[in-house]
Amino acid sequence: MSTSFRHAGTGGDKPFFLHDDFLLQSEQARRLYHDYARHLPIIDYHNHLPPREIAENKRFANMTQIWLRGDHYKWRAMRALGMPERVITGDADDEEKFFSWAEALPRLVRNPLFHWSHLELYNTFGIKAYLNQASAGSIYATCNAQLATPGHSTRELLEGFRVEVVGTTDDPCDHLEFHQRYASQPAAFRLVPSFRPDKLLVPGSAGDFRDYIQRLEQTAGSRITDMASLLSALKTRMDYFHEVGCRVSDHGLPQIPYPAPWSSSLDRSFASFLRGQSPLEPSWFVPFAGHLLVNLCEMYYQKGWVQQFHLGAMRNLNPRLLARLGADAGADSMGDSGQAEGLARLLGTLAEKDALAKTILYNLHPALNEVFATMAGNFNDESGPGKIQFGSGWWFLDQKDGMEKQLNTLSYLGVISTFIGMTTDSRSFLSFSRHEYFRRVLCNLFGHDMATGLIPNDASWIGEIIQRICYFNAKQYFGFPDRINQAE
Amino acid sequence: MSTSFRHAGTGGDKPFFLHDDFLLQSEQARRLYHDYARHLPIIDYHNHLPPREIAENKRFANMTQIWLRGDHYKWRAMRALGMPERVITGDADDEEKFFSWAEALPRLVRNPLFHWSHLELYNTFGIKAYLNQASAGSIYATCNAQLATPGHSTRELLEGFRVEVVGTTDDPCDHLEFHQRYASQPAAFRLVPSFRPDKLLVPGSAGDFRDYIQRLEQTAGSRITDMASLLSALKTRMDYFHEVGCRVSDHGLPQIPYPAPWSSSLDRSFASFLRGQSPLEPSWFVPFAGHLLVNLCEMYYQKGWVQQFHLGAMRNLNPRLLARLGADAGADSMGDSGQAEGLARLLGTLAEKDALAKTILYNLHPALNEVFATMAGNFNDESGPGKIQFGSGWWFLDQKDGMEKQLNTLSYLGVISTFIGMTTDSRSFLSFSRHEYFRRVLCNLFGHDMATGLIPNDASWIGEIIQRICYFNAKQYFGFPDRINQAE
Amino acid sequence: MSTSFRHAGTGGDKPFFLHDDFLLQSEQARRLYHDYARHLPIIDYHNHLPPREIAENKRFANMTQIWLRGDHYKWRAMRALGMPERVITGDADDEEKFFSWAEALPRLVRNPLFHWSHLELYNTFGIKAYLNQASAGSIYATCNAQLATPGHSTRELLEGFRVEVVGTTDDPCDHLEFHQRYASQPAAFRLVPSFRPDKLLVPGSAGDFRDYIQRLEQTAGSRITDMASLLSALKTRMDYFHEVGCRVSDHGLPQIPYPAPWSSSLDRSFASFLRGQSPLEPSWFVPFAGHLLVNLCEMYYQKGWVQQFHLGAMRNLNPRLLARLGADAGADSMGDSGQAEGLARLLGTLAEKDALAKTILYNLHPALNEVFATMAGNFNDESGPGKIQFGSGWWFLDQKDGMEKQLNTLSYLGVISTFIGMTTDSRSFLSFSRHEYFRRVLCNLFGHDMATGLIPNDASWIGEIIQRICYFNAKQYFGFPDRINQAE
Repeated sequence: MSTSFRHAGTGGDKPFFLHDDFLLQSEQARRLYHDYARHLPIIDYHNHLPPREIAENKRFANMTQIWLRGDHYKWRAMRALGMPERVITGDADDEEKFFSWAEALPRLVRNPLFHWSHLELYNTFGIKAYLNQASAGSIYATCNAQLATPGHSTRELLEGFRVEVVGTTDDPCDHLEFHQRYASQPAAFRLVPSFRPDKLLVPGSAGDFRDYIQRLEQTAGSRITDMASLLSALKTRMDYFHEVGCRVSDHGLPQIPYPAPWSSSLDRSFASFLRGQSPLEPSWFVPFAGHLLVNLCEMYYQKGWVQQFHLGAMRNLNPRLLARLGADAGADSMGDSGQAEGLARLLGTLAEKDALAKTILYNLHPALNEVFATMAGNFNDESGPGKIQFGSGWWFLDQKDGMEKQLNTLSYLGVISTFIGMTTDSRSFLSFSRHEYFRRVLCNLFGHDMATGLIPNDASWIGEIIQRICYFNAKQYFGFPDRINQAE
Repeated sequence: MSTSFRHAGTGGDKPFFLHDDFLLQSEQARRLYHDYARHLPIIDYHNHLPPREIAENKRFANMTQIWLRGDHYKWRAMRALGMPERVITGDADDEEKFFSWAEALPRLVRNPLFHWSHLELYNTFGIKAYLNQASAGSIYATCNAQLATPGHSTRELLEGFRVEVVGTTDDPCDHLEFHQRYASQPAAFRLVPSFRPDKLLVPGSAGDFRDYIQRLEQTAGSRITDMASLLSALKTRMDYFHEVGCRVSDHGLPQIPYPAPWSSSLDRSFASFLRGQSPLEPSWFVPFAGHLLVNLCEMYYQKGWVQQFHLGAMRNLNPRLLARLGADAGADSMGDSGQAEGLARLLGTLAEKDALAKTILYNLHPALNEVFATMAGNFNDESGPGKIQFGSGWWFLDQKDGMEKQLNTLSYLGVISTFIGMTTDSRSFLSFSRHEYFRRVLCNLFGHDMATGLIPNDASWIGEIIQRICYFNAKQYFGFPDRINQAE
Repeated sequence: MSTSFRHAGTGGDKPFFLHDDFLLQSEQARRLYHDYARHLPIIDYHNHLPPREIAENKRFANMTQIWLRGDHYKWRAMRALGMPERVITGDADDEEKFFSWAEALPRLVRNPLFHWSHLELYNTFGIKAYLNQASAGSIYATCNAQLATPGHSTRELLEGFRVEVVGTTDDPCDHLEFHQRYASQPAAFRLVPSFRPDKLLVPGSAGDFRDYIQRLEQTAGSRITDMASLLSALKTRMDYFHEVGCRVSDHGLPQIPYPAPWSSSLDRSFASFLRGQSPLEPSWFVPFAGHLLVNLCEMYYQKGWVQQFHLGAMRNLNPRLLARLGADAGADSMGDSGQAEGLARLLGTLAEKDALAKTILYNLHPALNEVFATMAGNFNDESGPGKIQFGSGWWFLDQKDGMEKQLNTLSYLGVISTFIGMTTDSRSFLSFSRHEYFRRVLCNLFGHDMATGLIPNDASWIGEIIQRICYFNAKQYFGFPDRINQAE
């Protein structure tokens, strides 16, 4: 046997594995998916799509541009195969990069990329064949030709997926000009920002942190000299975000910082740091982050927003890739720190103040799924169904196994009929096929339980729950505005 | 779609999901359950039933009283659905509370409450229909009528389940008068206490702790001024518990405290605290708890008792519910702290002293199942089969998925044929249906393995193991006394 | 029911559970196993076989000697059954020990020992019957008779399994005389050492540590007075190991020590300790271990070796067994400490220095499988496929469930087609049947996915991946030398 794959992925004589009933392993699952889930619109309440590319209705030059550029999932897989960085993120041309990816894909069976990639090629371009070295040329040509035709601009792609809401992720200093520009045009779906103040809670260097505060001062139009003026500036930005349609915040944190008391002495340390007279030190920064977060959360509550927490990632762990490519280059992984204590303190503090907003808790370490599901259950109340959500499988867990584990844990330890379902959390316009993927996985689980007598074998009863999870719960939960107020 | 469920749970035309072979997905599973497991008596060695209600053979006024009152599982689920606290724990009347629960249940498919509730309605009241808004009225009337008829007092209910032993959970200061009163009457099953000194190991405030020591002084009839006199008072109480039939202790702890050395200096700090002259401080309390626990465990060993440890819960996390309803109101969840180090130290210390009693380790965080199973395996010895038990799925894990994970982990990393099986750990007289549930899950796992060739397809061989797990192992393990000595 | 098993394991009238398609639950699984996996040679790159017994081509007096002696898996199981230590590790004679094991085995259904033991009896001795009290006599006689015939010496057994490479585990002070003696003879497989410097990284007492350094001085032929001379002595030993065919190192650690800076002040503390003038203290030992490990890893990289890390075991936890039987007596278990931070720091430090060798990370706590798989993915590069391996299920996890979880996690979060597969990590010459076991489990997983439409239903495509995992990837990854240089 040589070191290259002889047969991998050439088997064109075998039936293609994607078909109408992909992942649907019972009659009940097929009925749930085809009759209840399939045709519902999509509320993609949290993703990383670039607002500019939506506002400008961008078109893509070729498949490498739309499909491989910036996709660190694919990069990691290619590195695992030992492929040269040149064809992954380096100076190889777009065609060579596409062919390299085509060479990689047959070796990725059982990895979610194998499913996602073929779903994406099929759903957007009608390709019903394996992508591999043999098929790469014709698939590249076919898809590129389609990219130049109607239906393949950013907006048209999203419309094709029946997307109703696109929720981007935005820095408090962002001017949201593209959200505004988009809102000024006729459109089939809404584009709403979310407020993600990570740079204040997980700063890089002291210099970065001071620079960021300066940007915030300029954007908010007010001086920041202490905690009070910082909160005031953030309030100004939140008011602005709200006007542009924002109803959601988000936080990416290794762990929840403890809600510590804030004193005038700590405030002086922070002020001194801002003046450049003292360093960024845990002695004041740890309580700073804890206090700031509680105050932000109170403001979210006052505005009626939903707050999101993405917990547990360890980022940019490979110094060579960081130096060469910068952040988000595919060298991130799951942390194994505890999350229960921090979550209990923050949510308990907010509950005690009667200032607990609707909350979505996203977990990256599947061993903690049960911890997240039971923690969420402590803080629900009569303000509405599913107030505290154990969020859908995120990042590495946004695949069949991760989804099934999240759905099962939520079912067994919480109330899945109140679940607001899937969001892509993606940078890619093609990745909306994952909503289909999620819906198939979801229907398959419920269908299995109907088929094996674990739940009532009643399609209208269960189908209604499926429809809530796929669409209606999210619609009700977020209450995104129908029209964004342009006047203010 | 409106925000209320149109179809949920109305599907009366569809066959009811409960039937004789519920959960039994192979011919082998059905044979194991029906021929071996089904008819065995129940030894419910650990629960939270109120001894008074058994001694007084209480009857219940209606379904809300027997089924909903005090059931924080149901409360959590209703809060997750956004239902008002008024109909959960508030001042709504019993009928409205029952109807609210009936409204909730159809939305709880895949949650264990959906199985438990319908099993309980069927096993005790013969109800073979879905509980929902439409059926609530007739089910409430039917069940309430039955509650007034013979067979539905506390004792009659337990007798109906073929219960042989009921092991309650009792404070060392408890006088056990209801256990004694019960023992003085003719009875179909035994009622035995267990010794749970949590208030000494996980105290609330300093004041609570001092008050508790005072109560202990009064109950034991001796002064407590230091560690030695504390242990002496506890010994007095253990002797008394033993006389009343106690053969088991229990501890609910976030983590096992380390077995630290105890010094005269620490003893002086404790004495000073008892005199109200110094506060409750970790500096002496941490070694106090560690030392106390080791000494308690040595005393359990000397008495031939079984010691139980329920590890890893975080309790009363929602300050609003705690203020309104007190403890155990449905705001508890799984901790994610490590347990291996503490367990290794305590069990190792006791093994070294040749003072390790039979031990049951209950785990609340399923990610640690394998840790618990392998830890137990380190300390078995020739004193008897299954000396150190990895206990059955507890609290949140007392459901199909949690049971299966515990049973599988114990099988793969330990010796399941020595397992003492299920106990309800429940406050509810109806929850003994969970023994049936456990037995079905157990038989289904073994039956699956027989059907797929993983274990011998030999019903008498495997059936014998099933019978041991369901009944005979527990009977042999605990050695509860046949008659309680009333003379002493 | 008596306390002894009436029926367990006597069921000789039922078909034996082992057969050609054991564990292969789909037609696709059977085809993958029989057509692709079954006949491949074995590269057992990491085990604990005694080199002397291979070099001397040892024969075994009876089944107890070859099968039970030193097997702490079986010891643990017998202790869990409450069997007396006398028949486990005590002074009972070999026949009684064998009969005791035969009595235990029927009660071990669902434990991997039940599969392993029957596979081993069948594969090596052709026994196709349950071992139990009734069959023990004839099986003992039959197997013992075979042990005296050709085909049952250590080498013949390994040859019978088509073993191509045996990788033992060796101390840096080992003279490797048996590896050399073996290499001087004609042989069907290669015997290669691996370099495991655990005694420097996880020392016992201060005295043990000093003694070990003295042994290292003598073996390396150079004085060790500080970190530099220690590293120099280790380099000498690594050069020697390399000459004798070593291409792999190994480390068994509770956690990865942090790569701390090493200072002249710390060096003086270490030197002072070596002179017996100061104790073994964390203040210098913690940075010592961290610094030493980074330097060792750099040397592995320079030599082109593979480095292995076995993480997370807690060892010798039962003081009574330790006192009576010494280490490795079956009182070890899984730790639950975090591993992500230590791994990220070590691998990141090495990547930054461009000194990261091929690495295999073995995880003992299955809750961390996803952490290990994603951590490995951060550090792959173009030096070759699967540079950083998430190693196969180890110790307690070397069984069907543990293997499946490792294979699935690696599939979903990594690239399983680059996986180097199984190694026994065993002390037993019979345990090579576990490669068959692994291959059946592996083929069953892929076959299931082919049968259910999750991956292409193409036997040549998937079969090629199976063959890589079973044999070809390991062959390419390690690059063991064909002939060992005896001249130097």
